[in-house]
Amino acid sequence: MSKHKETPTTLPMMAEGAARSLLLLLCCLLSMLGGSLAWKARHFHWEVGYVFWKPDCQEKVMIGINGQFPGPTIRAKAGDIIVVELKNSLPTEGVVIHWHGIRQMGTPWADGTASLSQCPIKPDEVFVYRFKVDKPGTYFYHGHYGMQRAAGLYGSLVVEVADGEKEPFHYDGELNLLLSDWYHQDIYTQMVGLSSVPFRWIGEPQTLLINGKGQYNCSLAAHVVAEQSACEITSSSQCAPVTFRVLPKKTYRLRIASTTSLASLNLAIANHKMVVVEADGNYVQPFAVDDVDVYSGESYSVLIQTDQDPSSNYWISVGVRGRQPKTQPALAILNYYPNAAEKLPTSVPPVTPVWNDYTHSKSFTYKILALQGTPRPPSSSHRLMSLLNTQNKLNGYTKWSINNVSLVLPPTPYLGSIKHRLANAFVTVKPPESFPVDYNVMKPPVNPNTTQSSGVYMLEFNSTVDVILQNANALSENISEIHPWHLHGHDFWVLGYGEGRFTKNDVKSFNLKNPPLRNTVVIFPYGWTAIRFVADNPGAWAFHCHIEPHLHMGMGVIFAEGVELVGRIPKEAMTCGLTGKKFMNPYP
Amino acid sequence: MSKHKETPTTLPMMAEGAARSLLLLLCCLLSMLGGSLAWKARHFHWEVGYVFWKPDCQEKVMIGINGQFPGPTIRAKAGDIIVVELKNSLPTEGVVIHWHGIRQMGTPWADGTASLSQCPIKPDEVFVYRFKVDKPGTYFYHGHYGMQRAAGLYGSLVVEVADGEKEPFHYDGELNLLLSDWYHQDIYTQMVGLSSVPFRWIGEPQTLLINGKGQYNCSLAAHVVAEQSACEITSSSQCAPVTFRVLPKKTYRLRIASTTSLASLNLAIANHKMVVVEADGNYVQPFAVDDVDVYSGESYSVLIQTDQDPSSNYWISVGVRGRQPKTQPALAILNYYPNAAEKLPTSVPPVTPVWNDYTHSKSFTYKILALQGTPRPPSSSHRLMSLLNTQNKLNGYTKWSINNVSLVLPPTPYLGSIKHRLANAFVTVKPPESFPVDYNVMKPPVNPNTTQSSGVYMLEFNSTVDVILQNANALSENISEIHPWHLHGHDFWVLGYGEGRFTKNDVKSFNLKNPPLRNTVVIFPYGWTAIRFVADNPGAWAFHCHIEPHLHMGMGVIFAEGVELVGRIPKEAMTCGLTGKKFMNPYP
Repeated sequence: MSKHKETPTTLPMMAEGAARSLLLLLCCLLSMLGGSLAWKARHFHWEVGYVFWKPDCQEKVMIGINGQFPGPTIRAKAGDIIVVELKNSLPTEGVVIHWHGIRQMGTPWADGTASLSQCPIKPDEVFVYRFKVDKPGTYFYHGHYGMQRAAGLYGSLVVEVADGEKEPFHYDGELNLLLSDWYHQDIYTQMVGLSSVPFRWIGEPQTLLINGKGQYNCSLAAHVVAEQSACEITSSSQCAPVTFRVLPKKTYRLRIASTTSLASLNLAIANHKMVVVEADGNYVQPFAVDDVDVYSGESYSVLIQTDQDPSSNYWISVGVRGRQPKTQPALAILNYYPNAAEKLPTSVPPVTPVWNDYTHSKSFTYKILALQGTPRPPSSSHRLMSLLNTQNKLNGYTKWSINNVSLVLPPTPYLGSIKHRLANAFVTVKPPESFPVDYNVMKPPVNPNTTQSSGVYMLEFNSTVDVILQNANALSENISEIHPWHLHGHDFWVLGYGEGRFTKNDVKSFNLKNPPLRNTVVIFPYGWTAIRFVADNPGAWAFHCHIEPHLHMGMGVIFAEGVELVGRIPKEAMTCGLTGKKFMNPYP
Repeated sequence: MSKHKETPTTLPMMAEGAARSLLLLLCCLLSMLGGSLAWKARHFHWEVGYVFWKPDCQEKVMIGINGQFPGPTIRAKAGDIIVVELKNSLPTEGVVIHWHGIRQMGTPWADGTASLSQCPIKPDEVFVYRFKVDKPGTYFYHGHYGMQRAAGLYGSLVVEVADGEKEPFHYDGELNLLLSDWYHQDIYTQMVGLSSVPFRWIGEPQTLLINGKGQYNCSLAAHVVAEQSACEITSSSQCAPVTFRVLPKKTYRLRIASTTSLASLNLAIANHKMVVVEADGNYVQPFAVDDVDVYSGESYSVLIQTDQDPSSNYWISVGVRGRQPKTQPALAILNYYPNAAEKLPTSVPPVTPVWNDYTHSKSFTYKILALQGTPRPPSSSHRLMSLLNTQNKLNGYTKWSINNVSLVLPPTPYLGSIKHRLANAFVTVKPPESFPVDYNVMKPPVNPNTTQSSGVYMLEFNSTVDVILQNANALSENISEIHPWHLHGHDFWVLGYGEGRFTKNDVKSFNLKNPPLRNTVVIFPYGWTAIRFVADNPGAWAFHCHIEPHLHMGMGVIFAEGVELVGRIPKEAMTCGLTGKKFMNPYP
């Protein structure tokens, strides 16, 4: 459905004129050297609109792209330029699309983050996203305005190695699994509930989806699992089970990514071990596991061997972690050739680990280490900030706060307001970089009242920044939740994890040898996670909990660096708020 | 809840500098003559946002103003300036508010019509509506973007006579009844359904509302009407019955307006005759009736005498006309002092006329004639256009068309694109002013295929225009629907009505003596209605069926006149589409 045109052309992405000419020259030279070395511009024409869809057999209105859900998969090669001409055909809502995991070096206006990189695209208008995919890996894209991601606005983005390059592992074929969760309540109701007094929590999702398909209130495995009713599904229905056809005795790469609104997930395949080889677009030291934890915002590649009895098909099962699961596992079928795709496995689906077995989760997470050859972190940092994650109250509203500041996004995109030094675009008070030494992370906040701000952590360009993400007890006793934190515009090194409150001593335990590079990392209940990154990408960038309702409740911060070095921001990105006013003529 | 500040100030509404100074001078002079003659600027601070509400005892998400539904009632005096600072606090949707019945002489940018007078106000932004209410009458306001009116975005706007002036009738007190209908399906689902193949009609409303209150699936009159179940309502609930307290032996003015999405209504009060005295902000020759038809977009004032047995309360009943009613009547209570407000009448509620008794409706409509002293129409017109209303198909989609053109609204507001002569803002092909002589209005279209356009009927400034609204058979045999047509920016004279196809001979029957002035008029099934107006208001104006889904399906046309005379359009109104681009600096 996605109109897809590939042209071996011309326009590079760098910001300024000189770089542009230079690259143009380089490109021409490369073209002359032979087509296989040249990158491509990959053009897509997308239209965002409401669609009736039955992702879990129940019909709802979703936000789709080109009439389909999930959105079309983008496949590209490292070094390619992606050009998405996005038309907003929602009747009254603005829209943006974030390219999750793509660093947008030199194109910070293409990050697709409302209030940061651009103004929402207005109904009936077109915005052109043009950016380079510089690193092979498993990515995805999604709405980043209001809670539109949770309405189904997402899809896969797969970047293969450039022509002539090789992955550091072998595989014969590839399977793509985009995981998500699905609520029957529309996002408008969800948003107003989260912003109401009394607070109305969205609850657990009704269904888990694999590539946009799930089954509500029935099970594909009803014939082998007691207490579940069979699904009445035809193979043409939108909630028909996903089947992955494989040949026996081969190696397959499974690309797994999660764009859930809330759920932390675990994926297991009956009878098949998995070897993890990639996380968030970065290679990791291969390690074998029976199941894989995937938090919202994360992606992995795992290799499997199709070395099992080929007369059978096998369940792929996706279950909930970290929250008492009220949502049944999603199932898909690993279909060994030449079995019929619809031949249901006769074994019981693999049972994913118990939701609160954090030992299991930590064991998995701690195994993720950089593959040799991955850039190492600088040996020290210029700045250390500790970000305490707390659940709070603000005039009766329930919020999430970072160092007692709950993020409120401004109407003017930070990128424009910082670059053009616009007064009153956001709160200029510096947000705090630490929290009281006597704060007890094991208990509910003594004073639950919080504050709101749109303040920015201004980072020195090219400086190295350490962030300690410190988890804590929520508002109720004995509750501390998982939060997967996602950084825009950068990868970061995960230096370490720990229990309880981070102390100076913990610095000694930092892994500087082979810490994994990632864009999303989890903090475990009552624990801390330490990351390091180099502020080398001029722009304004969100760093936030990837749980959609948590971000909506203020769980994020804003980083900005080298904004004065940012090239010409396309006017089309700045037609709102104070940038809209500034960019306007006095009167035509 | 509405923050309301009255200041006896200064800023007049006229467009150009000279007029401004002149008016300022006049105003000062008037102020010196005495406060009673001076108009007031009435300031309102409104915030539009989602609210949980139970308009008919069932909780839904609605679009409210300042946390309430319906929006606050504006009361002003003729000559006042209304200033509404509207903040859009919807998370992702734009918004506008149309001031229905206010002509916006000199302020066409304040008409609150997306794609015509302004760009939608973006989330988190503020737009200031500033306009004069020059004529006393019963008006209302509502959203005019997508189908936001149907989400509850509306309220009353009452303009009293200026100080020192008198209404041409006496009354002791006033009651306000804003009528509407309510769907449990959200507007996003409604919109995508109307724009789907196969077509999904929204069906009949679940509930009729009086001042935003109704009762779903139960009846206040269950104790006197068989087959209905009683409502379980406390007096504090949002769907508690509306009660209007009156003193015996007095005259009351009931202001009645309808902002229904679909339903045509009829209102009756047990034991009380009504004398109609006003229609759409214009006085009419008083006439007595037992019940009043009110189509969407219309308003009336009626006088009642509280001359009945004062020991009883009386039902006010609102029922459906023109469509087989699947929605039960709305009830309110006329509460004679000193009876308890909650004392339910012991009689059966008045039964409104049978839905398809068009003879009754026509009889009522034909009685509406201008009060002596009302301006008369010019005796002839410069231009006559016939607008055939048909239901059609376009690539499988169901549409409504005017002379086989279904209106599609452009992203750039007409007001800006016409004034600044922007190319490619809308289709410049002139829309047709007539339809084939052999078109059989009594039958479904022989060729149901239609076309789409954003074309404009350009009217010569100050010319007199006659429009024949010609009804016809819909797509199915033996169906022709009621359509209430509403004109922005003008009142028009209703010259006459007729059955079947309008012919030249019918011109002779035009009433040029005392045709009523209105802004909304109905066309009856298989009939025609003739109107005349003077194109004396520089601007771009919508003329459309006021049924929300019909407009969404293309049932409207655009008129524009004297746009070159329009003063400085506030930049804030033009921040989208091609005007947004034109108004932007090359680069700051």
